[in-house]
Amino acid sequence: MAETRLGPGREFDAIRALVARWGARARGIGDDAAVLDVPDGEQLVVSTDVSVEHVHFRREWLTAGEIGWRATVAAASDLAAMAATPIGILTALTVPPSWRGELPAIGVGIGEAAERVGAAIVGGDLSDGDVLSLAVTVLGCSRRPLRRSGAKPGDALWVTGAFGGPGRAVRDWLALRTPLAEASLRFARPSARIAHARWLAERGATACIDISDGLVADLGHLAAASEVRVEVALDALPCVADVSRLDAAVSGEEYELAVTAPADLDVGAFELAFGIPLTRLGVVTAGDPGVAVTLEGSRVELTGGYDHFSL
Amino acid sequence: MAETRLGPGREFDAIRALVARWGARARGIGDDAAVLDVPDGEQLVVSTDVSVEHVHFRREWLTAGEIGWRATVAAASDLAAMAATPIGILTALTVPPSWRGELPAIGVGIGEAAERVGAAIVGGDLSDGDVLSLAVTVLGCSRRPLRRSGAKPGDALWVTGAFGGPGRAVRDWLALRTPLAEASLRFARPSARIAHARWLAERGATACIDISDGLVADLGHLAAASEVRVEVALDALPCVADVSRLDAAVSGEEYELAVTAPADLDVGAFELAFGIPLTRLGVVTAGDPGVAVTLEGSRVELTGGYDHFSL
Repeated sequence: MAETRLGPGREFDAIRALVARWGARARGIGDDAAVLDVPDGEQLVVSTDVSVEHVHFRREWLTAGEIGWRATVAAASDLAAMAATPIGILTALTVPPSWRGELPAIGVGIGEAAERVGAAIVGGDLSDGDVLSLAVTVLGCSRRPLRRSGAKPGDALWVTGAFGGPGRAVRDWLALRTPLAEASLRFARPSARIAHARWLAERGATACIDISDGLVADLGHLAAASEVRVEVALDALPCVADVSRLDAAVSGEEYELAVTAPADLDVGAFELAFGIPLTRLGVVTAGDPGVAVTLEGSRVELTGGYDHFSL
Repeated sequence: MAETRLGPGREFDAIRALVARWGARARGIGDDAAVLDVPDGEQLVVSTDVSVEHVHFRREWLTAGEIGWRATVAAASDLAAMAATPIGILTALTVPPSWRGELPAIGVGIGEAAERVGAAIVGGDLSDGDVLSLAVTVLGCSRRPLRRSGAKPGDALWVTGAFGGPGRAVRDWLALRTPLAEASLRFARPSARIAHARWLAERGATACIDISDGLVADLGHLAAASEVRVEVALDALPCVADVSRLDAAVSGEEYELAVTAPADLDVGAFELAFGIPLTRLGVVTAGDPGVAVTLEGSRVELTGGYDHFSL
């Protein structure tokens, strides 16, 4: 489709520059709204996610490109948690004067992340404001969305990837230490586990959540939604270098998946396909709804988590 | 559908309170993403719009409920401009501590506006931040979306409603005067012209834009997109009380529609159906793309407009 020509004005100049950088990845920008096709027989799946300077990140922690990448992947990760396929992204950006020079680089990061998750950039809004903020909406589709509420007693609990990187990076930055690259990259360049979720859904996954508030906190949401008890043994939890399992279990913004599924998933096939671990961490039972966590056979209470609203 | 149960935490308490206020208007909140059906044979139409304190409004101008209403209607108005029917709304809210007590009232305004435009509230995000910001995404569907780019030489130019209220209200507030209620209500409680756009689309409208940057500025976007010349005579422009036609022509955030359509629309039927004026203001020609404005037979240059990015 030919692009709609934009009229004059400084806001539109900025949008034109972004669209030029996005190239074929941007589609149909310039109308009042974007038009997308949802394949027959599929449902629309949609989520919105806001990343705010000083709340979700600090300027000295990330490059402008990483800020754009991270906000986009964070939003797409919610679609991964539903086993949906992203089709389109909208970005509502609030850009203070001190950030305007970085807008093209932020746009590059958004574009790279859109490319990675397989979605077109189909619209957005641009505003002045006192603080940099990126509200990213991701649209996708699915023939059978995977919900938080489907976990059943008898399911096993699985997680993708290795945990603790983002929490460790933020702790180091706050202490004015330089984090190890493994940790800082997990914060700055997270991945949305989209194909991974579809793989799991096709093999009988019953419920899924992406880890944004911390593994234990998010399992609490899954347990509440499914009205089940999730029993987690942290012993096997894969952690990035120099992070304890207890710290890894409360590290937020991992964007890994926690999935309830059959106990006999083919771990080797998953790891061969995706190059990251798939680890069985526990079981779902019919006990009191909630999460019970153990480490080395002892019950541990982890109340931490990443509650942005109380920062 | 039963609501998904939310887990513990202060952010979730705030979301629970909002969802409780929205009642049946909120649907499927609590999963990672919302699931919606797009009717077979229709396309998905989607737009996002951000409203930021100090940029789009000031606290002393609006009640909390009006802030929520206005942000929601502004986003829905972009769907009206495509002659699309809203089906779902997502709200990404950044709420500083000084605004938290007002969050329920903001939610009431969002819910009232969602009710008015006929959409469910299907998701959102809530973050701390230094300034109140509402990023609202509206999803809709249409069998044949109306675009900015369809205007053809020979079409007539039409506008809905009466202009100048928002511009006048903002000027008065900035000068510490109390605006007339007619003007301030047009700013605080705008309407999205959704049914109006469908009426026009069914009667041969070729292109449409909603007036957010100001009538003349937005016609510039329509003219650029359609590669046509739009000749506008402001003489007939309906204005709210105490506003000149020149001021009305550059007043932003009107959320009225400018439409290119046949010259013989049944104005009486429109006005009977909707209770607002439908006014023929000019013609589309094959001249140099752009907008030519006259008042009382003389050419006028109106370069003003509402370019948030340059405030």
